[in-house]
Amino acid sequence: MDENNYNDFSHKADVENDGGGGGVMYERKESNASSYSEREAAITEVLLKSRVNNTSQIAIIGANICTIESLDYEYYQAFAAFAGLNMIFAICAAALCALIAPAAAGSGIPEVKAYLNGVDAHSILAPSTLFVKIFGSIFGVSAGFVVGKEGPMVHTGACIANFLGQGGSCKYHLNWKWLRYFKNDRDRRDLITCGAAAGVAAAFCSPIGGVLFALEEAASWWRSALLWRTFFTNAVVAMVVRSLIEFCRSGKCGLFGQGGLIMFEVNSAVPSYNTPDLLAVMLLGVLGGLFGSLYNYLVDKVLRTYSIINERGPAFKVLLVITVSLLTSCCAYGLPWLTNCTSCPVGLENECPTIGRFGNYRSFQCQPGYYNELASLFLNTNDNAIRNLFSSRNKNEFHLSTLFIYFAAIYFLGIVTYGIAVPSGLFIPVILAGASYGRFVGSLLGSISNLDVGLFALLGAASFLGGTMRMTVSLCMILLELTNDLLMLPLVMLVLLISKTVADSFNKGVYDQIVKMKGFPYMEAHAEPYMKQLVARDVCSGPLITFSGVEKVSNILHALRMTGHNGFPVIDEPPFSDAPELCGLVLRSHLLVLLKAKFFANSQVLSEPEFLRMFHAFDFAKPGSGKGLRVEDLDINDDEMEMYVDLHPVTNTSPYTVVETMSLAKAAVLFRKLGLRHLCVIPKTPRRFPIVGILTRHDFMPEHVLGLIPHK
Amino acid sequence: MDENNYNDFSHKADVENDGGGGGVMYERKESNASSYSEREAAITEVLLKSRVNNTSQIAIIGANICTIESLDYEYYQAFAAFAGLNMIFAICAAALCALIAPAAAGSGIPEVKAYLNGVDAHSILAPSTLFVKIFGSIFGVSAGFVVGKEGPMVHTGACIANFLGQGGSCKYHLNWKWLRYFKNDRDRRDLITCGAAAGVAAAFCSPIGGVLFALEEAASWWRSALLWRTFFTNAVVAMVVRSLIEFCRSGKCGLFGQGGLIMFEVNSAVPSYNTPDLLAVMLLGVLGGLFGSLYNYLVDKVLRTYSIINERGPAFKVLLVITVSLLTSCCAYGLPWLTNCTSCPVGLENECPTIGRFGNYRSFQCQPGYYNELASLFLNTNDNAIRNLFSSRNKNEFHLSTLFIYFAAIYFLGIVTYGIAVPSGLFIPVILAGASYGRFVGSLLGSISNLDVGLFALLGAASFLGGTMRMTVSLCMILLELTNDLLMLPLVMLVLLISKTVADSFNKGVYDQIVKMKGFPYMEAHAEPYMKQLVARDVCSGPLITFSGVEKVSNILHALRMTGHNGFPVIDEPPFSDAPELCGLVLRSHLLVLLKAKFFANSQVLSEPEFLRMFHAFDFAKPGSGKGLRVEDLDINDDEMEMYVDLHPVTNTSPYTVVETMSLAKAAVLFRKLGLRHLCVIPKTPRRFPIVGILTRHDFMPEHVLGLIPHK
Repeated sequence: MDENNYNDFSHKADVENDGGGGGVMYERKESNASSYSEREAAITEVLLKSRVNNTSQIAIIGANICTIESLDYEYYQAFAAFAGLNMIFAICAAALCALIAPAAAGSGIPEVKAYLNGVDAHSILAPSTLFVKIFGSIFGVSAGFVVGKEGPMVHTGACIANFLGQGGSCKYHLNWKWLRYFKNDRDRRDLITCGAAAGVAAAFCSPIGGVLFALEEAASWWRSALLWRTFFTNAVVAMVVRSLIEFCRSGKCGLFGQGGLIMFEVNSAVPSYNTPDLLAVMLLGVLGGLFGSLYNYLVDKVLRTYSIINERGPAFKVLLVITVSLLTSCCAYGLPWLTNCTSCPVGLENECPTIGRFGNYRSFQCQPGYYNELASLFLNTNDNAIRNLFSSRNKNEFHLSTLFIYFAAIYFLGIVTYGIAVPSGLFIPVILAGASYGRFVGSLLGSISNLDVGLFALLGAASFLGGTMRMTVSLCMILLELTNDLLMLPLVMLVLLISKTVADSFNKGVYDQIVKMKGFPYMEAHAEPYMKQLVARDVCSGPLITFSGVEKVSNILHALRMTGHNGFPVIDEPPFSDAPELCGLVLRSHLLVLLKAKFFANSQVLSEPEFLRMFHAFDFAKPGSGKGLRVEDLDINDDEMEMYVDLHPVTNTSPYTVVETMSLAKAAVLFRKLGLRHLCVIPKTPRRFPIVGILTRHDFMPEHVLGLIPHK
Repeated sequence: MDENNYNDFSHKADVENDGGGGGVMYERKESNASSYSEREAAITEVLLKSRVNNTSQIAIIGANICTIESLDYEYYQAFAAFAGLNMIFAICAAALCALIAPAAAGSGIPEVKAYLNGVDAHSILAPSTLFVKIFGSIFGVSAGFVVGKEGPMVHTGACIANFLGQGGSCKYHLNWKWLRYFKNDRDRRDLITCGAAAGVAAAFCSPIGGVLFALEEAASWWRSALLWRTFFTNAVVAMVVRSLIEFCRSGKCGLFGQGGLIMFEVNSAVPSYNTPDLLAVMLLGVLGGLFGSLYNYLVDKVLRTYSIINERGPAFKVLLVITVSLLTSCCAYGLPWLTNCTSCPVGLENECPTIGRFGNYRSFQCQPGYYNELASLFLNTNDNAIRNLFSSRNKNEFHLSTLFIYFAAIYFLGIVTYGIAVPSGLFIPVILAGASYGRFVGSLLGSISNLDVGLFALLGAASFLGGTMRMTVSLCMILLELTNDLLMLPLVMLVLLISKTVADSFNKGVYDQIVKMKGFPYMEAHAEPYMKQLVARDVCSGPLITFSGVEKVSNILHALRMTGHNGFPVIDEPPFSDAPELCGLVLRSHLLVLLKAKFFANSQVLSEPEFLRMFHAFDFAKPGSGKGLRVEDLDINDDEMEMYVDLHPVTNTSPYTVVETMSLAKAAVLFRKLGLRHLCVIPKTPRRFPIVGILTRHDFMPEHVLGLIPHK
């Protein structure tokens, strides 16, 4: 009896040791070690206490026979240690997020997507966001939340690219002149696309998948040069990951690279499949579409609720995180009690239950030779849980009830977790939920289909990914590179097709939905149908501010102070032309540089040709985020206010223009395809003022356009 | 001795049986059977004769010991049969090409690329081209030319898509009304992109590779909807190929699907590689870049020479084909005599030499237990030759001299074969040449690198593909799907990076080069630097023909007859407006429909609103190629000539416009990105005629632009 008792607790310690759902293997960072040892200390404490046999004998017997009776004090203590440690990590993550960089919360993929569409929202890619994203994500995964690390890694990649692209950070005294190559929007955008692609490549060890992800999901404008650049980046990522794994093969780096390049190898390829198999796969696709669109719907609702809470301040954010953490701990610790112990499969007695190492079978409250199915999923790293679900080694490893409970719990937790102030990826929760219902369907249809349950789990994951994220080629490729099973490619393609089609009939992809919910002015690739009813002139809004070719300093300064416009039309008037005509467009940032240089004249004269030699090209280059000149930086006295400045040298004399009667839909296509920020609207009939207005991104937003046509 | 003699000839028969370089396995079409049985009859004849022992005993002994002495009569006879049959197939292919559809010659990928860029050259995708492409390609490959079937399959896919997209063909009485959905340029272009993608997917059993090929090489405009459509197409292709292979597993369909979905399985993955290996791989990359750019250079020169010959008429085309066929036969039959016989590897005696079936080792003139290395490559199907080169089963299967001779011959034959009047793909020659030098380098560096020679061959093929075609992601994916070896992905990426970089510093990719050589007005994705020096007005050429809003019929008819313009600006003049102003752009095809309807008025009045109800939307839809109205189809009498027609209902009132002072580079970007055919240039200053000119694709071509600035 004593020995039994001892065994029992050693298993429990093991449970806690590995618990917390995936924290320990996370991101191959050194902080693993600290979180691991901290937790081990707490567990040892519980373990030492439990050596004294003060447990109720009835409870211990009960634990092995009837789980409901195990009302033991130690179990509460163990739960407290488990939930407490989870909560500490959760609070760390939430505090980082709430106090330092609120932009780091969530997946980060919608933000990167919006940035690459041209939306430069506040501190989306700032160094502080980078810092919080890395460490917040480590804490978040360590806290046992149902969150992934893949989205945050994409955001991290984009942040690093931005950091390098703007030549370091002045604020943090990290500045490299030689990195200042990327001084225009397009190069910087390309670099950030490469960063995002590299994030996927590193997260899934999937270089080609990363290229396709950048192409399909992240980038708004695609050029063949960009394909080549992301490919180059990801080739480097692949080589580096490959050599690190090689370097760490001897065990120098802990658990890093244990899985090798193929993270979830599936060797369950059935060489042939017939009609019932295809029907089963189609069923999975339909299920994935339904579950996926429901998931997106619920995530949207939850996000809207959370945003009300989160707006009330950092304290509320942390409170929300604590609540969700407690809920997660309760599920992870409580649900395994619902299942009975399962006897280890024949031939695997040596490995089952897995003690003192990361592996397949968790004993939880069970006797030696038995394992707890739900604990093997909940109290395991996310990567191991996925491996368990994809495994075809033991067909009956998980019963239907286990898979159902696990699916329901993960589906629910995934929905309530996204949106709290913690960096949280969506890939892992979606793969876990998808794999569990895939395996469920596979077990259910085992009699009529000869496909493996592991393959069913993989197809389930594919269908749910397709149903939520609505990607196709990149998901195919990522799954292929994750599992190294080329023969199942036709099935994965089929399941993705069906799930995406089904889900698309209900709502948009989860990332698109989040972009919209966050209020980013995202330009869609296609024009909306109602735009065909309008012309460009209809949506030009606000008073138009124009400058003369040679303009008074005070007028410019007034315009810069009064408006937030980033571009102003320049009109040439007599005596510089016969009649007023559009000279071009001048940017706010260039005006500021010009005013700062104070090259003013007392009368309306054109400047000398050597004027431009005063400037370097670098002076007009796009500054890093938050580093440009502001109006407040200018120091212009009253005399100078009355002087004139020639705007011709800094005017873009070839702005893209549309005639005022141009269909708004066509103007939107022009704006979007060329990636413009300003589009000049010129009059159709002569003898009028040479410009009607300027269209910007906001003028094409549905809110603005639909506000103009109240009857629609 | 007699038995030896018998054996000898049975081997020779076997050589001829399988000879002709890949014809027999080609394209899994029923014509295989006929070409196979024809050839078999010829061989049987030779075989029957040789039963009579009339051969010189010395020659037979010599054949087994010293190849040079074998001056036997039968060998000449066998060569005659071999070369003769090859030539018959070659003449069939050439006759089809030269007489029915000259557009079917060559790879077809440049043509598809040009079409997708907006160049609708004569009968590129016509049904006759489709017919010749399919059967010409079968004959061409059967004739033993060093040509692939992949390029023609891409073209075939695009032709089928075009055929379906225009709702069948009136000319051949195949017409389906329900297929007339694709009535605009964009939908038709999308459909043809899907067809090209499906071609790659079918050729390589590579659905994802096909999607990426369409994206990287074929398409000029890419949209996310297109990604989804090609993915859908290729999923269907994958399922169909998969089920056909399944259906044919029992051997019902001859050799179809023998290789399964993975055509060239490479199981040579070395789990680890070190610095010398990487250096060897880099060397391969550099070699691939050099060989590739040299290949492109020589192909260009040969093509220019051939085009002079081909222009002289179909007879010259056929003569050229006959010459190249003879050259190929000489190489394939003559070069194997240069090598000694190699003894079969230990343990493979059963399979070596391969008799009476398709396999690895060819005996040619060798004794049992020996095989001829060069014959195993030359006198084999292309697919089998590639399998032999990628094979890692027998490291010393091929000696250095064999690989060198084979590489030189294939490199040379590949260059002289492309450009003759036969459908000819480039993938197979390039893979063969690349694999042979890759294996050569691998054998050479065997002592310092622990990578497998089969893997070296694969990397060699990758490097040469990268050096000639300059694709990256799609090649990676195609090779991955061909070989199912995910672990070598980082190495393939590295080798592609290096070879593309090296080759790009010399010249353009082979398909781009062919597009240019053929004189297609291909719009590059980026503007040329010299365009920055010019403005839009500078390149407007030719007299501008404009119509009034309500125009005299005779004027319109005159303009349509005198010029080939496809778009005409419509100017509103008093009394319809205060001053002349640009109303829009009217298309030639729409004018013809309007004139055909004869809705004329006796004076300059606007037409009634119900006027448009006379037409269906379908009347103005884009007709299939060669099926639109022509000016000659109109029958207008003298009275009608003096009447007026209102152009407003058919005028596009929102044409894209640029101001005349717009930089030509920016106008080119606008033109290219929006995929325009006409771009109106409007004046900058008021009080002038409201249009300066119209820019078309030809105005942006370097020949035109550089002709305007003679000093550049």
